[in-house]
Amino acid sequence: MGKKNPSVRDALRATPGQGVHLDPGDFPVGPTAKSDAAAGLAATGKRLAACQEALWGEGVFGGGSRSVLLVLQGMDTSGKGGTIKHVCGLVNPQGLRIATFRKPTRAESRHDFLWRVRKQAPGPGYIGVFDRSHYEDVLIARVDELVPRETWEARYDAINRFEAELTEQGTAIVKCFLHISAEKQRERLVARLENPAKQWKYHPEDLRARAKWSDYQRAYADALDRCAAVPWHVVPADHKWYRNWVVAQLLLETLTDLDPRRPEPDYDVAAELCRITTADPLG
Amino acid sequence: MGKKNPSVRDALRATPGQGVHLDPGDFPVGPTAKSDAAAGLAATGKRLAACQEALWGEGVFGGGSRSVLLVLQGMDTSGKGGTIKHVCGLVNPQGLRIATFRKPTRAESRHDFLWRVRKQAPGPGYIGVFDRSHYEDVLIARVDELVPRETWEARYDAINRFEAELTEQGTAIVKCFLHISAEKQRERLVARLENPAKQWKYHPEDLRARAKWSDYQRAYADALDRCAAVPWHVVPADHKWYRNWVVAQLLLETLTDLDPRRPEPDYDVAAELCRITTADPLG
Repeated sequence: MGKKNPSVRDALRATPGQGVHLDPGDFPVGPTAKSDAAAGLAATGKRLAACQEALWGEGVFGGGSRSVLLVLQGMDTSGKGGTIKHVCGLVNPQGLRIATFRKPTRAESRHDFLWRVRKQAPGPGYIGVFDRSHYEDVLIARVDELVPRETWEARYDAINRFEAELTEQGTAIVKCFLHISAEKQRERLVARLENPAKQWKYHPEDLRARAKWSDYQRAYADALDRCAAVPWHVVPADHKWYRNWVVAQLLLETLTDLDPRRPEPDYDVAAELCRITTADPLG
Repeated sequence: MGKKNPSVRDALRATPGQGVHLDPGDFPVGPTAKSDAAAGLAATGKRLAACQEALWGEGVFGGGSRSVLLVLQGMDTSGKGGTIKHVCGLVNPQGLRIATFRKPTRAESRHDFLWRVRKQAPGPGYIGVFDRSHYEDVLIARVDELVPRETWEARYDAINRFEAELTEQGTAIVKCFLHISAEKQRERLVARLENPAKQWKYHPEDLRARAKWSDYQRAYADALDRCAAVPWHVVPADHKWYRNWVVAQLLLETLTDLDPRRPEPDYDVAAELCRITTADPLG
């Protein structure tokens, strides 16, 4: 038996203390050409869809308690939406629970920061997807000083406890930091501005956040360091095709590990077959 | 200019008073061969995805109030789940809100039958999908006499008022009766029983409902007749490829009529382009 290839999870797992050390344009594992990645993504999609159906059967009909939660974080234009479309779009939408965390509403702001997040935790059998997440509360909240330092400082521990609870309850959490370069962000923002069909996806605040690039990178590095009990994966995201391949692979490795089981029939299969073939009520 | 082809909506719209008159194995409009339908579905999927993105932009970011609601009804094995997987799977899952209505919980049963349904109405910009719906309350509730006759009799009007309200609020409702033959149902139930990977999708109650086939057909015919203000479409569903093609087409015609508009930028595009190209905060 040959040596097993390193898993994508192992290859891209963030190492606490090292911050974000990968090159966003690099291919540290897997395909290095777009066409290979496309073929790989299609194959992964088929396996992912089969695993998801089993997870859904197990959790929704079989009394199982397990689920998956994909957490997508990254700077503007890093491809959170694109990943949902192209990777999550590979599986049956019925088994997905997608939650987008925008600026908290006034009602949400009056609660603890995890209040609105807990409500979106995926139920048994589902793949939950967080488009932004509780990490915003130690990212923009910190960079823009929306709350005092002691407040956001206390949140890292709260997040660790929250993620430990979810894990305990049977949720496999896949945390992805979609890592793009400042150059690539400029390119994508310009592309949005130049394309009338995409102008609505641009907001002037995007440039405000961009101006604080290094503050954000520092906040991300801290989040990766201080919330590492459930590991983060750094996804080089300058190439969309590579980003998609990586996230699909991370999901597939996670689901393969879970090895979800379709429920066993709780009735007598032979007797039912007999009923319908020899004693069909409709004759 | 040639005569316009009849729309699929026109061709398959149920006519009040005529009940369910189509042959479930027929192809009254569109492709009659599986390969043509597959090519058509792929092309429709691309257009559907583009329309959906515009609807999502309009409703979620542009202040629009419009949405779409796909209601899927049909006997067991008629393909509600398959339609969600293969048709709804063509669009960005982020823009979908899928609700499955199973047997009401005890808490749900204590409310009016529309209580749990109203909560699942799609918000602006979304395509809601009902896997079963409020119609169960005039189908199984009637056939199995779960409530007294005067209760289910009163529900037709309540449903009409509810659907009128949704329409008024900007929701385009697409009601599909996935129409299969008793023979096809037997074939599919047997296939589930014979395939270990599918046995969990079978329940002995499926045969109990099958034994009441003609009662159900009558209840469906009445629902189609009495709730026709928002029209029903009878989807011949003995052929999965035809069913998928039809539902995709019904959605596309509906979205094309809505003609959703991506929001106009509410900022000065030229000024922003200038900022990022000549005064990039990251220099």
